[in-house]
Amino acid sequence: MSRPEPTRPASLLIGVDLGGTNIRAALIRRDGVIVRQARRPSMQEHPPEATLERIVEACREVIDSAQAAPADVLGVGIGLPGIMDSATGICFWSPNFPHWKDVPIGPRVSEALRLPVFILNDAKCAALGELVFGAGRGVRNMVLITLGTGIGGAFVVDGRLLLGPNGSIGEVGHHTVDPGGRRCGCGNFGCWEAMCARDAIIERAERKLQAGRASRLRELTARGEITPEAVSRAAAEGDPLAREVLEETGFWLGVGVANLINMLNPERFVIGGGIAQAGDLLLEPMRRTVNSRAVPLQRRTAQIVPAELGDQAGVMGAAVLVLDRLENITAAL
Amino acid sequence: MSRPEPTRPASLLIGVDLGGTNIRAALIRRDGVIVRQARRPSMQEHPPEATLERIVEACREVIDSAQAAPADVLGVGIGLPGIMDSATGICFWSPNFPHWKDVPIGPRVSEALRLPVFILNDAKCAALGELVFGAGRGVRNMVLITLGTGIGGAFVVDGRLLLGPNGSIGEVGHHTVDPGGRRCGCGNFGCWEAMCARDAIIERAERKLQAGRASRLRELTARGEITPEAVSRAAAEGDPLAREVLEETGFWLGVGVANLINMLNPERFVIGGGIAQAGDLLLEPMRRTVNSRAVPLQRRTAQIVPAELGDQAGVMGAAVLVLDRLENITAAL
Repeated sequence: MSRPEPTRPASLLIGVDLGGTNIRAALIRRDGVIVRQARRPSMQEHPPEATLERIVEACREVIDSAQAAPADVLGVGIGLPGIMDSATGICFWSPNFPHWKDVPIGPRVSEALRLPVFILNDAKCAALGELVFGAGRGVRNMVLITLGTGIGGAFVVDGRLLLGPNGSIGEVGHHTVDPGGRRCGCGNFGCWEAMCARDAIIERAERKLQAGRASRLRELTARGEITPEAVSRAAAEGDPLAREVLEETGFWLGVGVANLINMLNPERFVIGGGIAQAGDLLLEPMRRTVNSRAVPLQRRTAQIVPAELGDQAGVMGAAVLVLDRLENITAAL
Repeated sequence: MSRPEPTRPASLLIGVDLGGTNIRAALIRRDGVIVRQARRPSMQEHPPEATLERIVEACREVIDSAQAAPADVLGVGIGLPGIMDSATGICFWSPNFPHWKDVPIGPRVSEALRLPVFILNDAKCAALGELVFGAGRGVRNMVLITLGTGIGGAFVVDGRLLLGPNGSIGEVGHHTVDPGGRRCGCGNFGCWEAMCARDAIIERAERKLQAGRASRLRELTARGEITPEAVSRAAAEGDPLAREVLEETGFWLGVGVANLINMLNPERFVIGGGIAQAGDLLLEPMRRTVNSRAVPLQRRTAQIVPAELGDQAGVMGAAVLVLDRLENITAAL
């Protein structure tokens, strides 16, 4: 007499990073190893259904291509920017999808895949990824910032990712570090991101160039606009003007990092995002400012380190979200 | 045959506020009603044993004078400023007791009273008090600041008081709001407390007086130094100079309040401490700054309110600490 095969325990996770251009899905083992990846266009200009269909397709592709079955998958985590209710899986608003309003991402994708689906702000997802599989391994208290167009942030205290009433704890980019400082996209003056994110770097370089100074940047950007990447490259090649830009930017970065170290008392302060790749020419002046401005006890507690997962933080963190919701793993950290 | 009386369930708490001048102990019912209070000198200049004896005496006095028995008391909570290990009850350092080093307050008082004893930083105690019995009733996300000589802070997220690795999460006074601003006692420039706590108010008033302007403050302070209380009083009487001082101070207060609202997304932002008693002449300019500088979603979520428990926040919060440690009450908020 034939007996049914015993059910295999579900051992795989799917993490989805819902960006403005691409949907990236990854099939991930519980130990953090990425088994398969798939990509679809985000269909930003289409009705939400088009995007949700592509998410489902990408998830099916990673399951099928790994010759796995849906039953092998514990659940799906989806990270995206914006404001959402993680409990119901409804996204109220996302800067990546300007036409969306109250889209039930979680319920729809769950229905199509017949799997549990969880959604979370992408910066918070990245923090979960770094906490469990990246630069935050081994600590229970972590602040993560991503330095790019703006500055995103997430706080982990006693092993728990802080969310708060709107899921928007960690909105660090618009804390004021200089009330008379540079105008921010939000309309205020001297927000942290206005002083050290992308546009601040570009503007500092432009001003110095407009003053007529020589710089390698003139050649590097001859055929286009100044970018933070060009500034980093010129600085790495020894260009004094570009180094000044990173030095000044590092000071303002340090003011905000010290503020967060003082207030949140992290054991690990993780810095991610494209601009952080400027490396020590940016991070050394940041450290000097932190050393002089953080309260000594808090400063001693905090290691300041670069993020480790790069581009993969989003999908890995979305996978961690599944483990955390179903098995409360961060409580055990 | 006589039977032993059934044991009454312990229904009382003792909260102790260990200040630099006085030890205050209160016998408190579980519903927050203070039944008895006692006071002893803090014996700041004596060896720690003298202080610990006075704490025990004050606790015994409130038990005896209420005709209660130690068995009616669930436990004792002690709040004091400084750095301590709440798990072991050892205080490493306290500004109130400059001669102390690694004093086992918890174990010693527990041994003498034969009751569970817990210790916690006094600003954190005040937050527990306001959360359960004061201005934070009914919310799970609260930031509390105390505005006085410096600025103390405490964060409650999802019903939990955040402590962090050194128990020093919430060190808000030394976050920089103006890197080129007034020198702080800590040696840095433009710390939040350097811009709006006691000395900043006094200095603003002095500068304006030194410029030769008329002010009611000249009479009010004829026989002594300028105090924030005198500034508040002159402002309340309509003095333009004193009102300017509060207006300017309120702006800087608002910059930091907005920073905390952005980052911590509280439902209730509670402002305590002596200086907050200046009332609307200080708090209105603060609100205007917050309205312009806080991220709109976070601003809408946060009610800004005065603390309610005043002087009693310390003893009440220390009593809440007992309930929280023994019965994890804040998790149920």
